[in-house]
Amino acid sequence: MQIFCVNKSVRLGMPRLQETDVTVKERVRIGGRSARIQQAVHDAVRKLDAFSTRNQITVPQIAAEAGVTPSTIYRRWGDLSALLADVAVERLRPIADPDDTGSIEGDLRAFIEQYAEEMSSPVGLALMRDVLATTGQGQPGACAGFTCDHLTTINERAKARGEQPFDIDEVIDHVVAPIVYRTLFSDEMPTAAYCRQLVDRIYPKT
Amino acid sequence: MQIFCVNKSVRLGMPRLQETDVTVKERVRIGGRSARIQQAVHDAVRKLDAFSTRNQITVPQIAAEAGVTPSTIYRRWGDLSALLADVAVERLRPIADPDDTGSIEGDLRAFIEQYAEEMSSPVGLALMRDVLATTGQGQPGACAGFTCDHLTTINERAKARGEQPFDIDEVIDHVVAPIVYRTLFSDEMPTAAYCRQLVDRIYPKT
Repeated sequence: MQIFCVNKSVRLGMPRLQETDVTVKERVRIGGRSARIQQAVHDAVRKLDAFSTRNQITVPQIAAEAGVTPSTIYRRWGDLSALLADVAVERLRPIADPDDTGSIEGDLRAFIEQYAEEMSSPVGLALMRDVLATTGQGQPGACAGFTCDHLTTINERAKARGEQPFDIDEVIDHVVAPIVYRTLFSDEMPTAAYCRQLVDRIYPKT
Repeated sequence: MQIFCVNKSVRLGMPRLQETDVTVKERVRIGGRSARIQQAVHDAVRKLDAFSTRNQITVPQIAAEAGVTPSTIYRRWGDLSALLADVAVERLRPIADPDDTGSIEGDLRAFIEQYAEEMSSPVGLALMRDVLATTGQGQPGACAGFTCDHLTTINERAKARGEQPFDIDEVIDHVVAPIVYRTLFSDEMPTAAYCRQLVDRIYPKT
Protein backbone atom coordinates (compact mmCIF):
# COMPACT_ATOMS: atom_id res chain seq x y z
CA MET A 1 0.00 0.00 0.00
CA GLN A 2 1.44 3.33 -1.04
CA ILE A 3 1.70 6.40 1.11
CA PHE A 4 0.01 9.20 -0.73
CA CYS A 5 -0.17 12.91 -0.06
CA VAL A 6 -3.18 14.56 -1.68
CA ASN A 7 -1.49 17.85 -0.96
CA LYS A 8 2.28 17.69 -0.94
CA SER A 9 2.57 19.64 2.31
CA VAL A 10 0.07 17.56 4.27
CA ARG A 11 -0.41 13.84 4.81
CA LEU A 12 -3.62 11.88 5.21
CA GLY A 13 -4.07 9.19 7.92
CA MET A 14 -3.55 5.48 8.56
CA PRO A 15 -5.35 2.60 6.89
CA ARG A 16 -8.54 2.10 8.88
CA LEU A 17 -11.28 0.33 6.96
CA GLN A 18 -10.98 -3.44 6.72
CA GLU A 19 -12.47 -3.57 3.23
CA THR A 20 -9.74 -2.46 0.89
CA ASP A 21 -11.08 -3.32 -2.53
CA VAL A 22 -14.56 -2.03 -2.87
CA THR A 23 -15.01 -3.01 -6.50
CA VAL A 24 -12.68 -5.92 -6.82
CA LYS A 25 -14.92 -8.74 -7.91
CA GLU A 26 -12.81 -11.56 -6.53
CA ARG A 27 -11.27 -11.78 -3.08
CA VAL A 28 -7.59 -11.00 -3.05
CA ARG A 29 -5.22 -13.48 -1.43
CA ILE A 30 -2.62 -11.32 0.28
CA GLY A 31 0.72 -11.93 -1.37
CA GLY A 32 -0.90 -14.08 -4.03
CA ARG A 33 -1.05 -13.63 -7.77
CA SER A 34 -4.28 -11.68 -7.48
CA ALA A 35 -2.76 -9.17 -5.05
CA ARG A 36 0.30 -8.77 -7.28
CA ILE A 37 -1.90 -8.06 -10.31
CA GLN A 38 -3.87 -5.49 -8.37
CA GLN A 39 -0.70 -3.78 -7.19
CA ALA A 40 0.79 -3.77 -10.70
CA VAL A 41 -2.39 -2.33 -12.25
CA HIS A 42 -2.76 0.34 -9.55
CA ASP A 43 0.91 1.28 -9.97
CA ALA A 44 0.45 1.48 -13.76
CA VAL A 45 -2.52 3.86 -13.38
CA ARG A 46 -0.57 6.11 -11.02
CA LYS A 47 2.44 6.14 -13.33
CA LEU A 48 0.38 6.92 -16.45
CA ASP A 49 -1.62 9.48 -14.49
CA ALA A 50 1.55 11.42 -13.75
CA PHE A 51 2.47 11.68 -17.41
CA SER A 52 -0.83 11.93 -19.29
CA THR A 53 -3.99 13.96 -19.07
CA ARG A 54 -6.84 11.90 -17.68
CA ASN A 55 -8.74 11.46 -20.95
CA GLN A 56 -5.69 10.00 -22.68
CA ILE A 57 -5.42 6.98 -20.38
CA THR A 58 -6.79 3.75 -21.87
CA VAL A 59 -7.18 0.20 -20.58
CA PRO A 60 -4.76 -1.24 -23.19
CA GLN A 61 -2.12 1.32 -22.07
CA ILE A 62 -2.60 0.42 -18.41
CA ALA A 63 -2.47 -3.30 -19.25
CA ALA A 64 0.78 -2.86 -21.20
CA GLU A 65 2.33 -0.85 -18.37
CA ALA A 66 1.23 -3.41 -15.75
CA GLY A 67 2.27 -6.43 -17.83
CA VAL A 68 -1.22 -7.95 -17.88
CA THR A 69 -3.81 -8.39 -20.63
CA PRO A 70 -6.63 -5.86 -21.07
CA SER A 71 -9.12 -8.68 -20.44
CA THR A 72 -7.58 -9.20 -16.97
CA ILE A 73 -8.47 -5.59 -16.19
CA TYR A 74 -11.99 -5.80 -17.63
CA ARG A 75 -12.64 -9.09 -15.79
CA ARG A 76 -11.51 -7.66 -12.48
CA TRP A 77 -12.77 -4.08 -12.55
CA GLY A 78 -15.49 -4.12 -15.20
CA ASP A 79 -14.42 -0.87 -16.86
CA LEU A 80 -11.90 1.96 -16.76
CA SER A 81 -13.98 4.26 -14.55
CA ALA A 82 -14.32 1.56 -11.86
CA LEU A 83 -10.56 0.98 -11.92
CA LEU A 84 -9.81 4.72 -11.70
CA ALA A 85 -12.29 5.05 -8.82
CA ASP A 86 -10.64 2.14 -7.04
CA VAL A 87 -7.18 3.70 -7.40
CA ALA A 88 -8.58 7.05 -6.20
CA VAL A 89 -10.04 5.43 -3.06
CA GLU A 90 -6.62 3.94 -2.29
CA ARG A 91 -4.99 7.32 -2.71
CA LEU A 92 -7.58 8.98 -0.47
CA ARG A 93 -7.19 6.28 2.21
CA PRO A 94 -5.89 7.92 5.39
CA ILE A 95 -2.32 7.23 6.46
CA ALA A 96 -2.38 8.95 9.88
CA ASP A 97 -4.83 9.93 12.60
CA PRO A 98 -5.95 13.57 12.84
CA ASP A 99 -3.56 15.75 14.86
CA ASP A 100 -4.03 15.65 18.63
CA THR A 101 -4.19 19.29 19.70
CA GLY A 102 -5.25 18.51 23.26
CA SER A 103 -8.94 19.45 22.92
CA ILE A 104 -11.88 18.24 20.83
CA GLU A 105 -12.53 21.70 19.40
CA GLY A 106 -8.88 22.12 18.43
CA ASP A 107 -8.79 18.65 16.88
CA LEU A 108 -11.92 19.31 14.82
CA ARG A 109 -10.73 22.74 13.66
CA ALA A 110 -7.31 21.37 12.65
CA PHE A 111 -8.82 18.36 10.87
CA ILE A 112 -11.41 20.40 8.94
CA GLU A 113 -8.86 22.95 7.76
CA GLN A 114 -6.55 20.18 6.54
CA TYR A 115 -9.45 18.28 4.97
CA ALA A 116 -10.61 21.35 3.02
CA GLU A 117 -7.06 22.10 1.89
CA GLU A 118 -6.48 18.57 0.65
CA MET A 119 -9.87 18.01 -0.98
CA SER A 120 -9.83 21.35 -2.81
CA SER A 121 -6.25 20.87 -4.09
CA PRO A 122 -6.07 19.92 -7.81
CA VAL A 123 -5.10 16.35 -6.88
CA GLY A 124 -7.82 16.02 -4.23
CA LEU A 125 -10.46 17.35 -6.61
CA ALA A 126 -9.33 14.98 -9.39
CA LEU A 127 -9.50 12.01 -6.98
CA MET A 128 -13.00 12.99 -5.80
CA ARG A 129 -14.10 13.23 -9.44
CA ASP A 130 -12.67 9.77 -10.15
CA VAL A 131 -14.46 8.35 -7.12
CA LEU A 132 -17.77 9.87 -8.27
CA ALA A 133 -17.39 9.00 -11.97
CA THR A 134 -18.14 5.31 -11.56
CA THR A 135 -21.66 3.96 -11.30
CA GLY A 136 -20.68 1.54 -8.52
CA GLN A 137 -21.78 2.87 -5.15
CA GLY A 138 -18.88 1.41 -3.19
CA GLN A 139 -16.17 3.99 -3.79
CA PRO A 140 -18.01 7.19 -2.79
CA GLY A 141 -19.16 5.40 0.38
CA ALA A 142 -15.60 4.32 1.19
CA CYS A 143 -14.42 7.88 0.67
CA ALA A 144 -17.09 9.29 3.01
CA GLY A 145 -16.25 6.46 5.43
CA PHE A 146 -12.66 7.72 5.78
CA THR A 147 -14.02 11.10 6.90
CA CYS A 148 -16.41 9.46 9.40
CA ASP A 149 -13.53 7.38 10.76
CA HIS A 150 -11.47 10.50 11.40
CA LEU A 151 -14.36 12.23 13.16
CA THR A 152 -14.90 9.08 15.26
CA THR A 153 -11.21 9.08 16.24
CA ILE A 154 -11.48 12.71 17.37
CA ASN A 155 -14.60 11.86 19.39
CA GLU A 156 -13.01 8.78 21.00
CA ARG A 157 -9.99 10.82 22.01
CA ALA A 158 -12.33 13.48 23.44
CA LYS A 159 -14.21 10.87 25.51
CA ALA A 160 -10.89 9.61 26.92
CA ARG A 161 -10.13 13.20 27.98
CA GLY A 162 -13.57 13.49 29.60
CA GLU A 163 -14.85 15.89 26.92
CA GLN A 164 -18.35 15.84 25.41
CA PRO A 165 -18.26 14.34 21.87
CA PHE A 166 -19.90 16.16 18.94
CA ASP A 167 -22.68 14.79 16.73
CA ILE A 168 -20.85 13.27 13.74
CA ASP A 169 -23.87 13.58 11.43
CA GLU A 170 -24.10 17.28 12.24
CA VAL A 171 -20.44 17.80 11.37
CA ILE A 172 -20.90 15.83 8.12
CA ASP A 173 -24.01 17.80 7.11
CA HIS A 174 -22.98 21.30 8.19
CA VAL A 175 -19.18 21.37 7.95
CA VAL A 176 -17.97 18.63 5.58
CA ALA A 177 -20.86 18.81 3.07
CA PRO A 178 -20.62 22.59 2.41
CA ILE A 179 -16.85 22.27 1.89
CA VAL A 180 -17.32 19.41 -0.58
CA TYR A 181 -20.23 21.13 -2.38
CA ARG A 182 -18.25 24.34 -2.86
CA THR A 183 -15.18 22.41 -3.95
CA LEU A 184 -17.09 20.41 -6.55
CA PHE A 185 -19.55 23.02 -7.81
CA SER A 186 -17.88 26.43 -7.57
CA ASP A 187 -14.74 28.09 -8.80
CA GLU A 188 -14.09 29.53 -5.34
CA MET A 189 -12.31 27.02 -3.18
CA PRO A 190 -13.17 26.96 0.54
CA THR A 191 -10.81 29.26 2.48
CA ALA A 192 -9.51 28.70 6.03
CA ALA A 193 -11.79 31.54 7.18
CA TYR A 194 -14.81 29.84 5.61
CA CYS A 195 -13.93 26.56 7.34
CA ARG A 196 -13.59 28.36 10.68
CA GLN A 197 -17.05 29.89 10.24
CA LEU A 198 -18.53 26.45 9.57
CA VAL A 199 -16.94 24.99 12.72
CA ASP A 200 -18.15 28.06 14.68
CA ARG A 201 -21.64 26.62 14.22
CA ILE A 202 -20.58 23.50 16.15
CA TYR A 203 -18.42 25.41 18.66
CA PRO A 204 -19.85 28.94 18.95
CA LYS A 205 -17.40 31.56 20.14
CA THR A 206 -18.03 32.41 23.76
CA MET B 1 -34.04 23.16 -26.34
CA GLN B 2 -35.68 20.02 -25.00
CA ILE B 3 -37.98 19.82 -22.05
CA PHE B 4 -36.51 17.30 -19.71
CA CYS B 5 -37.85 15.73 -16.51
CA VAL B 6 -35.10 14.42 -14.23
CA ASN B 7 -37.82 12.59 -12.37
CA LYS B 8 -40.77 11.61 -14.50
CA SER B 9 -43.32 12.83 -11.97
CA VAL B 10 -41.79 16.26 -11.48
CA ARG B 11 -40.57 18.98 -13.81
CA LEU B 12 -37.66 21.35 -13.41
CA GLY B 13 -37.95 25.11 -14.19
CA MET B 14 -37.63 27.59 -17.06
CA PRO B 15 -34.45 28.54 -18.92
CA ARG B 16 -32.85 31.28 -16.87
CA LEU B 17 -29.11 31.68 -17.41
CA GLN B 18 -28.07 33.59 -20.50
CA GLU B 19 -25.00 31.44 -21.10
CA THR B 20 -26.30 28.22 -22.63
CA ASP B 21 -23.17 26.50 -23.82
CA VAL B 22 -20.60 26.56 -21.13
CA THR B 23 -18.02 24.53 -22.98
CA VAL B 24 -18.86 25.26 -26.58
CA LYS B 25 -15.70 26.79 -27.89
CA GLU B 26 -17.31 28.85 -30.63
CA ARG B 27 -20.34 31.09 -30.30
CA VAL B 28 -23.47 29.54 -31.68
CA ARG B 29 -25.51 31.53 -34.19
CA ILE B 30 -29.11 30.70 -33.36
CA GLY B 31 -30.60 28.84 -36.30
CA GLY B 32 -27.22 28.63 -38.02
CA ARG B 33 -25.20 25.58 -38.99
CA SER B 34 -23.37 25.64 -35.69
CA ALA B 35 -26.61 25.53 -33.71
CA ARG B 36 -27.92 22.69 -35.88
CA ILE B 37 -24.74 20.66 -35.28
CA GLN B 38 -25.00 21.22 -31.55
CA GLN B 39 -28.63 20.16 -31.53
CA ALA B 40 -27.89 17.05 -33.62
CA VAL B 41 -24.98 16.02 -31.38
CA HIS B 42 -26.94 16.61 -28.17
CA ASP B 43 -29.88 14.63 -29.59
CA ALA B 44 -27.51 11.80 -30.58
CA VAL B 45 -26.09 11.60 -27.04
CA ARG B 46 -29.56 11.49 -25.52
CA LYS B 47 -30.67 8.81 -27.97
CA LEU B 48 -27.60 6.63 -27.41
CA ASP B 49 -27.87 7.23 -23.67
CA ALA B 50 -31.32 5.69 -23.64
CA PHE B 51 -30.15 2.48 -25.30
CA SER B 52 -26.59 1.92 -24.02
CA THR B 53 -24.85 1.87 -20.69
CA ARG B 54 -22.78 4.98 -20.20
CA ASN B 55 -19.38 3.37 -20.69
CA GLN B 56 -20.37 1.97 -24.08
CA ILE B 57 -20.94 5.38 -25.69
CA THR B 58 -18.10 6.55 -27.94
CA VAL B 59 -17.43 9.71 -29.94
CA PRO B 60 -17.50 7.85 -33.31
CA GLN B 61 -20.93 6.40 -32.38
CA ILE B 62 -22.28 9.84 -31.45
CA ALA B 63 -20.83 11.32 -34.64
CA ALA B 64 -22.45 8.61 -36.80
CA GLU B 65 -25.80 9.10 -35.07
CA ALA B 66 -25.60 12.90 -35.45
CA GLY B 67 -24.38 12.78 -39.06
CA VAL B 68 -21.16 14.71 -38.35
CA THR B 69 -17.50 13.67 -38.29
CA PRO B 70 -15.80 12.72 -35.01
CA SER B 71 -13.37 15.59 -35.56
CA THR B 72 -16.30 18.04 -35.51
CA ILE B 73 -17.10 16.79 -32.01
CA TYR B 74 -13.49 16.90 -30.80
CA ARG B 75 -13.02 20.39 -32.27
CA ARG B 76 -16.10 21.71 -30.57
CA TRP B 77 -16.15 19.95 -27.20
CA GLY B 78 -12.55 18.80 -26.76
CA ASP B 79 -13.45 15.33 -25.48
CA LEU B 80 -16.32 13.00 -24.67
CA SER B 81 -16.58 13.94 -20.98
CA ALA B 82 -16.96 17.65 -21.84
CA LEU B 83 -19.72 16.80 -24.34
CA LEU B 84 -21.54 14.58 -21.83
CA ALA B 85 -21.24 17.31 -19.18
CA ASP B 86 -22.64 19.85 -21.63
CA VAL B 87 -25.63 17.63 -22.44
CA ALA B 88 -26.16 17.01 -18.70
CA VAL B 89 -26.22 20.77 -17.99
CA GLU B 90 -28.89 21.20 -20.68
CA ARG B 91 -30.95 18.42 -19.15
CA LEU B 92 -30.62 19.93 -15.67
CA ARG B 93 -31.56 23.39 -16.95
CA PRO B 94 -34.79 24.47 -15.24
CA ILE B 95 -37.97 24.63 -17.29
CA ALA B 96 -40.29 26.23 -14.69
CA ASP B 97 -40.10 28.47 -11.63
CA PRO B 98 -40.41 26.89 -8.17
CA ASP B 99 -44.05 26.45 -7.09
CA ASP B 100 -45.67 29.52 -5.53
CA THR B 101 -47.20 28.26 -2.29
CA GLY B 102 -48.08 31.74 -1.00
CA SER B 103 -45.25 32.04 1.57
CA ILE B 104 -41.45 32.03 1.48
CA GLU B 105 -41.20 29.15 3.94
CA GLY B 106 -43.69 27.07 1.94
CA ASP B 107 -41.88 27.88 -1.32
CA LEU B 108 -38.51 26.87 0.13
CA ARG B 109 -39.84 23.64 1.66
CA ALA B 110 -41.58 22.64 -1.59
CA PHE B 111 -38.54 23.50 -3.71
CA ILE B 112 -36.08 21.62 -1.47
CA GLU B 113 -38.20 18.50 -1.34
CA GLN B 114 -38.56 18.50 -5.14
CA TYR B 115 -34.84 19.26 -5.60
CA ALA B 116 -33.80 16.35 -3.36
CA GLU B 117 -36.22 14.00 -5.09
CA GLU B 118 -34.96 14.93 -8.56
CA MET B 119 -31.24 15.02 -7.75
CA SER B 120 -31.29 11.69 -5.92
CA SER B 121 -33.25 9.92 -8.67
CA PRO B 122 -31.11 7.59 -10.84
CA VAL B 123 -31.32 10.07 -13.75
CA GLY B 124 -30.50 13.10 -11.57
CA LEU B 125 -27.54 11.32 -10.02
CA ALA B 126 -26.23 10.23 -13.44
CA LEU B 127 -26.50 13.83 -14.71
CA MET B 128 -24.68 15.20 -11.65
CA ARG B 129 -21.93 12.64 -12.23
CA ASP B 130 -21.63 13.68 -15.88
CA VAL B 131 -21.43 17.33 -14.87
CA LEU B 132 -18.66 16.57 -12.36
CA ALA B 133 -16.70 14.17 -14.57
CA THR B 134 -15.23 16.85 -16.83
CA THR B 135 -12.19 18.87 -15.86
CA GLY B 136 -13.74 22.07 -17.21
CA GLN B 137 -15.08 24.21 -14.36
CA GLY B 138 -17.98 25.66 -16.33
CA GLN B 139 -20.58 22.90 -16.05
CA PRO B 140 -20.62 22.36 -12.26
CA GLY B 141 -20.88 26.15 -11.83
CA ALA B 142 -23.80 26.33 -14.28
CA CYS B 143 -25.51 23.51 -12.40
CA ALA B 144 -25.09 25.27 -9.02
CA GLY B 145 -26.21 28.49 -10.75
CA PHE B 146 -29.59 26.94 -11.59
CA THR B 147 -30.14 26.26 -7.88
CA CYS B 148 -29.11 29.80 -6.93
CA ASP B 149 -31.49 31.18 -9.56
CA HIS B 150 -34.39 29.24 -8.06
CA LEU B 151 -33.59 30.45 -4.55
CA THR B 152 -33.34 34.02 -5.89
CA THR B 153 -36.77 33.65 -7.52
CA ILE B 154 -38.26 32.49 -4.20
CA ASN B 155 -36.63 35.45 -2.43
CA GLU B 156 -37.83 37.96 -5.04
CA ARG B 157 -41.36 36.65 -4.74
CA ALA B 158 -41.10 36.92 -0.93
CA LYS B 159 -39.93 40.54 -1.17
CA ALA B 160 -42.93 41.36 -3.39
CA ARG B 161 -45.17 39.86 -0.69
CA GLY B 162 -43.42 41.97 1.99
CA GLU B 163 -41.70 38.93 3.53
CA GLN B 164 -38.11 38.84 4.80
CA PRO B 165 -35.81 36.99 2.31
CA PHE B 166 -33.49 34.21 3.52
CA ASP B 167 -29.71 34.16 3.17
CA ILE B 168 -29.10 32.22 -0.06
CA ASP B 169 -25.57 31.20 0.96
CA GLU B 170 -26.91 29.75 4.20
CA VAL B 171 -29.49 27.69 2.30
CA ILE B 172 -26.80 26.49 -0.13
CA ASP B 173 -24.39 25.53 2.68
CA HIS B 174 -26.82 24.01 5.16
CA VAL B 175 -29.72 22.65 3.09
CA VAL B 176 -28.57 22.08 -0.52
CA ALA B 177 -25.00 20.94 0.25
CA PRO B 178 -25.96 18.18 2.76
CA ILE B 179 -28.55 16.84 0.29
CA VAL B 180 -26.00 16.75 -2.53
CA TYR B 181 -23.25 15.28 -0.31
CA ARG B 182 -25.51 12.46 0.90
CA THR B 183 -26.77 11.83 -2.64
CA LEU B 184 -23.27 11.59 -4.07
CA PHE B 185 -21.43 9.84 -1.23
CA SER B 186 -23.89 7.57 0.54
CA ASP B 187 -26.21 4.74 -0.35
CA GLU B 188 -29.00 6.32 1.67
CA MET B 189 -30.83 8.88 -0.40
CA PRO B 190 -32.13 12.00 1.39
CA THR B 191 -35.72 11.43 2.57
CA ALA B 192 -38.49 14.05 2.75
CA ALA B 193 -38.16 13.97 6.56
CA TYR B 194 -34.42 14.66 6.31
CA CYS B 195 -35.07 17.62 3.96
CA ARG B 196 -37.67 19.00 6.38
CA GLN B 197 -35.16 18.83 9.25
CA LEU B 198 -32.61 20.75 7.19
CA VAL B 199 -35.11 23.51 6.36
CA ASP B 200 -36.13 23.58 10.06
CA ARG B 201 -32.70 25.13 10.69
CA ILE B 202 -33.64 28.06 8.44
CA TYR B 203 -37.27 28.21 9.65
CA PRO B 204 -37.35 26.85 13.20
CA LYS B 205 -40.69 25.50 14.33
CA THR B 206 -42.39 27.95 16.65
